[in-house]
Amino acid sequence: MISKNRIKFIRSLHRKKERIQHQKFIIEGEKPVKELLASDTAFDSIYFTENFASKHIEINGTLISGKEMESISVLKTTPGILAIGDVLRWKKPNFEVGKYIFLDRINDPGNLGTIIRIADWFGFDGIVCSKGSVDIYNPKVIQASMGSIFRVPVFYEDFDLLLPQVYQKIEIIGADMKGEAIQTFKFPKNGFLLMGSESHGISKGLHQYLRHKVTIPKYGKAESLNVAVATGILANQFING
Amino acid sequence: MISKNRIKFIRSLHRKKERIQHQKFIIEGEKPVKELLASDTAFDSIYFTENFASKHIEINGTLISGKEMESISVLKTTPGILAIGDVLRWKKPNFEVGKYIFLDRINDPGNLGTIIRIADWFGFDGIVCSKGSVDIYNPKVIQASMGSIFRVPVFYEDFDLLLPQVYQKIEIIGADMKGEAIQTFKFPKNGFLLMGSESHGISKGLHQYLRHKVTIPKYGKAESLNVAVATGILANQFING
Repeated sequence: MISKNRIKFIRSLHRKKERIQHQKFIIEGEKPVKELLASDTAFDSIYFTENFASKHIEINGTLISGKEMESISVLKTTPGILAIGDVLRWKKPNFEVGKYIFLDRINDPGNLGTIIRIADWFGFDGIVCSKGSVDIYNPKVIQASMGSIFRVPVFYEDFDLLLPQVYQKIEIIGADMKGEAIQTFKFPKNGFLLMGSESHGISKGLHQYLRHKVTIPKYGKAESLNVAVATGILANQFING
Repeated sequence: MISKNRIKFIRSLHRKKERIQHQKFIIEGEKPVKELLASDTAFDSIYFTENFASKHIEINGTLISGKEMESISVLKTTPGILAIGDVLRWKKPNFEVGKYIFLDRINDPGNLGTIIRIADWFGFDGIVCSKGSVDIYNPKVIQASMGSIFRVPVFYEDFDLLLPQVYQKIEIIGADMKGEAIQTFKFPKNGFLLMGSESHGISKGLHQYLRHKVTIPKYGKAESLNVAVATGILANQFING
């Protein structure tokens, strides 16, 4: 059972404005909720359906009807389990040591979630999105990240302010069609991998801060690669040399 | 203007069964429709809205209202242009020469579309999906492929029948957590890159046909990579060595 007021509250978290106001977000699905429980993240409640409970391990939460679940779920097909978590609070690093993925104007939530998962796989120290990029608590980001949001720090920064401050100390490597082939480029030990938007590339104003430009050689005819795929290929090269 | 019967026909193409029956499929969006026009694919009609026409180049097609477009579109937000194409007919190769991506039980349409785009970027000779995989004419595949479906041959085969016939002549390289690190593995000139399903890996019965197993070394904690991202990393290594 779940009260009408509570349903209304959870539904309000479908919207970014209310997520910011309440500092809460929705996590759906068995794997993401398990990862939430395994993390240090504070959460406020877990709801599940009888259908979910009959097929999965025991979860400490509130049993609700399938119809109630549908009314609070963000997804077309609800996985039968939903948690409300507190927004994540990562301590901001000085960025001078470590490997970071910088995303300039990323707007597809599935791509951001997939890139968080990539950063988690390769052990990057964090992801930095430019202001105005898609919200990390967008349900599609959560879903695509497959639980990696609980392990990879994600920050939002104004690149026009941050990059001028750091580019002389940190090697910034930009993905650019005119860059050096990744097979011959020698990636540094620390640095930022900067990915531009799929349709417009890296913002013009930021090119001056790039120490290096790299590209993934093309042999066929596609105009571009999906940005998460390109990030995966560059991240693999950055980490594995 | 578009007749009610025509609307009904186009709407029927939202379903796989009717796509197969009529041998037609829907292509939406400016870029995919442009790629259709640039290809040899036969198509039967193009519809666009006034709103689309006012912002884009001239298209030879039928002007319909925004409301009519919504009624035939598969997408939540219609791009204002939609074409009906004839299903693609690729000549089946003997597979003995060339580089192919084999997908065992891929079910996410976005991932299949993204992999078609990867194959197009790197110049693979084609993609082969196991029987029962997601339909290439699923609108989400078309959208994610960004027009690459018109350039990359995609086939559906029963792997349990095909692989036993060819594995002694063709090097089949399977993506497997227990495989050799891709950084040290020497990819052959021709061969099949076989990707398993994201949740279950390569089917057990197919392991006997793998000449090699390769893996993308992990340094962090994510359980897995998205299958399109993993395919992109392996494809890059296969092509660029």
